[in-house]
Amino acid sequence: MARAPSRIDTARPHIPDQVTSLDDVRHYSHVHRISGLADGVFSIAMTLLVLELVVPGHGSDAELLAKLDDLYPKFLVYAMSFVILGAYWVGHAIQFHYVIRADRPLMVRTVMFLMLVSLVPFSTAFLGDNPTSRVTIGFYALNLALCGMLMHGMLLYATKDPLMLNDVFDKRIFRGVRIAYVLGPALYVVAFLVALVSPLAGFVICIAVPLLTFFPNPFWGKIYSRFTRRGLPDDPADKP
Amino acid sequence: MARAPSRIDTARPHIPDQVTSLDDVRHYSHVHRISGLADGVFSIAMTLLVLELVVPGHGSDAELLAKLDDLYPKFLVYAMSFVILGAYWVGHAIQFHYVIRADRPLMVRTVMFLMLVSLVPFSTAFLGDNPTSRVTIGFYALNLALCGMLMHGMLLYATKDPLMLNDVFDKRIFRGVRIAYVLGPALYVVAFLVALVSPLAGFVICIAVPLLTFFPNPFWGKIYSRFTRRGLPDDPADKP
Amino acid sequence: MARAPSRIDTARPHIPDQVTSLDDVRHYSHVHRISGLADGVFSIAMTLLVLELVVPGHGSDAELLAKLDDLYPKFLVYAMSFVILGAYWVGHAIQFHYVIRADRPLMVRTVMFLMLVSLVPFSTAFLGDNPTSRVTIGFYALNLALCGMLMHGMLLYATKDPLMLNDVFDKRIFRGVRIAYVLGPALYVVAFLVALVSPLAGFVICIAVPLLTFFPNPFWGKIYSRFTRRGLPDDPADKP
Amino acid sequence: MARAPSRIDTARPHIPDQVTSLDDVRHYSHVHRISGLADGVFSIAMTLLVLELVVPGHGSDAELLAKLDDLYPKFLVYAMSFVILGAYWVGHAIQFHYVIRADRPLMVRTVMFLMLVSLVPFSTAFLGDNPTSRVTIGFYALNLALCGMLMHGMLLYATKDPLMLNDVFDKRIFRGVRIAYVLGPALYVVAFLVALVSPLAGFVICIAVPLLTFFPNPFWGKIYSRFTRRGLPDDPADKP
Repeated sequence: MARAPSRIDTARPHIPDQVTSLDDVRHYSHVHRISGLADGVFSIAMTLLVLELVVPGHGSDAELLAKLDDLYPKFLVYAMSFVILGAYWVGHAIQFHYVIRADRPLMVRTVMFLMLVSLVPFSTAFLGDNPTSRVTIGFYALNLALCGMLMHGMLLYATKDPLMLNDVFDKRIFRGVRIAYVLGPALYVVAFLVALVSPLAGFVICIAVPLLTFFPNPFWGKIYSRFTRRGLPDDPADKP
Repeated sequence: MARAPSRIDTARPHIPDQVTSLDDVRHYSHVHRISGLADGVFSIAMTLLVLELVVPGHGSDAELLAKLDDLYPKFLVYAMSFVILGAYWVGHAIQFHYVIRADRPLMVRTVMFLMLVSLVPFSTAFLGDNPTSRVTIGFYALNLALCGMLMHGMLLYATKDPLMLNDVFDKRIFRGVRIAYVLGPALYVVAFLVALVSPLAGFVICIAVPLLTFFPNPFWGKIYSRFTRRGLPDDPADKP
Repeated sequence: MARAPSRIDTARPHIPDQVTSLDDVRHYSHVHRISGLADGVFSIAMTLLVLELVVPGHGSDAELLAKLDDLYPKFLVYAMSFVILGAYWVGHAIQFHYVIRADRPLMVRTVMFLMLVSLVPFSTAFLGDNPTSRVTIGFYALNLALCGMLMHGMLLYATKDPLMLNDVFDKRIFRGVRIAYVLGPALYVVAFLVALVSPLAGFVICIAVPLLTFFPNPFWGKIYSRFTRRGLPDDPADKP
Repeated sequence: MARAPSRIDTARPHIPDQVTSLDDVRHYSHVHRISGLADGVFSIAMTLLVLELVVPGHGSDAELLAKLDDLYPKFLVYAMSFVILGAYWVGHAIQFHYVIRADRPLMVRTVMFLMLVSLVPFSTAFLGDNPTSRVTIGFYALNLALCGMLMHGMLLYATKDPLMLNDVFDKRIFRGVRIAYVLGPALYVVAFLVALVSPLAGFVICIAVPLLTFFPNPFWGKIYSRFTRRGLPDDPADKP
């Protein structure tokens, strides 16, 4: 069964023939270096906050429970950071399933993206300490919005060059992933604007966004399943 | 020699033909990103406790020996963490030898699993400081039981989709690995119940479980060798 | 279309025939271990300075803004380290796109290179604290110049043995990369000499070098694009 | 040209035919998980000591030079750790160039090896603080001797199972690598015995061993080049 032609497909009518030519891949690195650096930075950023969990030391059962209780906010911030960074890691892993070659500018974008990623534990702890401050909500929203925008930037950059793309990547996936990338930063802007009126409501939105997009749920699942699961629905827009 | 049909085999009568179709693997990432993140988190969690080993500084031979002696409990906790995390790392590496493709929900499960894994050094140090407290035994047992349950959850999720599985994975391996995954958390529940009566006995069980499953020994070897070494015994249950 | 013969090409007239022989690759490791170690060291060195960003704790909006303002120099050093290390990481990734096999001496050079790389956060913070001191500019310039020289040394070592090289690597790429490697350390020597007269001017050069080579810009892009982008210009020097 | 038969070759007369059978590799993981964990642990252990290099802060040029001078011993310990760990990393990378599949017991050995590897920064700093103490020399020598013995143990274990080995691995390489593994621990035992008489002489041997085996030099090069460089000398012992 022939695949429906799409804007991306028509932009690379010469694939996969030319990909096999060594000359074409001369200036592309395989993305495994990007994966290696990203997995390293993500794993360090994720586990960094464990260092804040100071082991309570000796004590009676009641004292130890009280000390665990004191650590409760730090446990929460730890779990939140893990989930948020996990959401971006999953997004990154999926994007680089479709992007299989990299040039220098894409690596530069990766480094800038990872710089913002490793700030997430700081932003999260900052927000966790001051859940109703416009400063912390603004900082947190800005950090995560920039992460999303740089992910979007990497996707737009890579999809301009068909030689960088996995042959299975097509227009519908592209559209679906872009919607997710545009939606994220937009929701953080909303969170910040809401926080100007009601800091608590802004905080709730900030927390809800990564939770909704990370854990499988009917709302997000419906949007997401359209483009990342088997059994893609027939999309009229793809018809010639 | 044809392989005996098993429940898993019959669930994927179309393999390996369809696996070679790009369309089928469109929405699966290769698991090397999961491996990359897991290896990063495991290696950080393993080496994190070295930071607690403060170098004793200058002194006479007798003073240095005394200082090393003071560090003894920390050395023990360090070694215990390494062994426990090592046991889970080995389990993870073996599971993802059989699971060769990943979708989004499997990546989400991976992140949640790693969140619990990087808590292990905390739980271990907490237990090491208070070996006879029901609080620490409960916390430790809960942490490791959840790790085991999430490993089990990942296996059950992945084995539902034949396209995620290495073709060499079969029913006997599945059954064997599951027994290990069910046994671990069960033993931690036992440890906690025993600790309510005798904290010391509970502590001993907590320590014994990872040691018994990590280091080769006749007891565990007998159970384990049935499904992970060459020369699989002919299993009557596999016969048609 | 036959590739123009170059000095490197003529030095390996027997490739790719012999590469397929197992005997020839007997004593070469694949470079993925070098990539793995380098990605690990780079990601740790990059994120290490986040630990210096102490979360400000509770406070009013005005207090939090003031505290963020206090952290401003640390944010700057953090970003600078990330960019500088990112520039070297990109260089390393590109070099090891062309170097595909490694022997023991190349691994030793890699370790020495990484030792200097993981000193970069220290040098950068040292310079950030004392932007007009000849000591810090000298230390920083020496550190980065040595990094560049070791990168150069690895390239020269690897290109002597055709069996270590990706077949797509040719004379023009070699010349282009070398220019970059010679230019970097040279500029740091200039920065140090300028600093003896005007410390501020030396500081500006120190900061400008990684920024100019990392972010795409017309000046550097013109030099760089000659050898790392598709559509290599016909180089008269390559003509026989 | 047929390869000379060796003890290892004759132990696997059925290779490579059976390797291509999926059934044979059913219970072997690819070693890339071992590489991933090892590269992670090595890179963390290597860069951990940078955290001890406290940035000196503000000051005049003379003050900064004095502060750098105070940091001198820490720089030395940092460089020493890097070189020692680098030597073991190179050894590990080379061993796992020849060992291409792993079973559970080999992974367990890897974890135990890495536990000792991540203690090396502690042992080195301990020795650096007390260069003439029998306690520190004993601790350091014991740590590195155990690392070497576990490397040896992994090699002996892996070479017993031909299915784990790269086909290019032969008897001469095996003998050469073993000599290095036996020599290392033996020299550390000598260092410790010498230290009982002359602590300073013991310290010098401790420092010299990794330096001699890491950096290319005529003494070690002569021994090493016999088995790891191209142009293997014809070895009469290999003749049938």
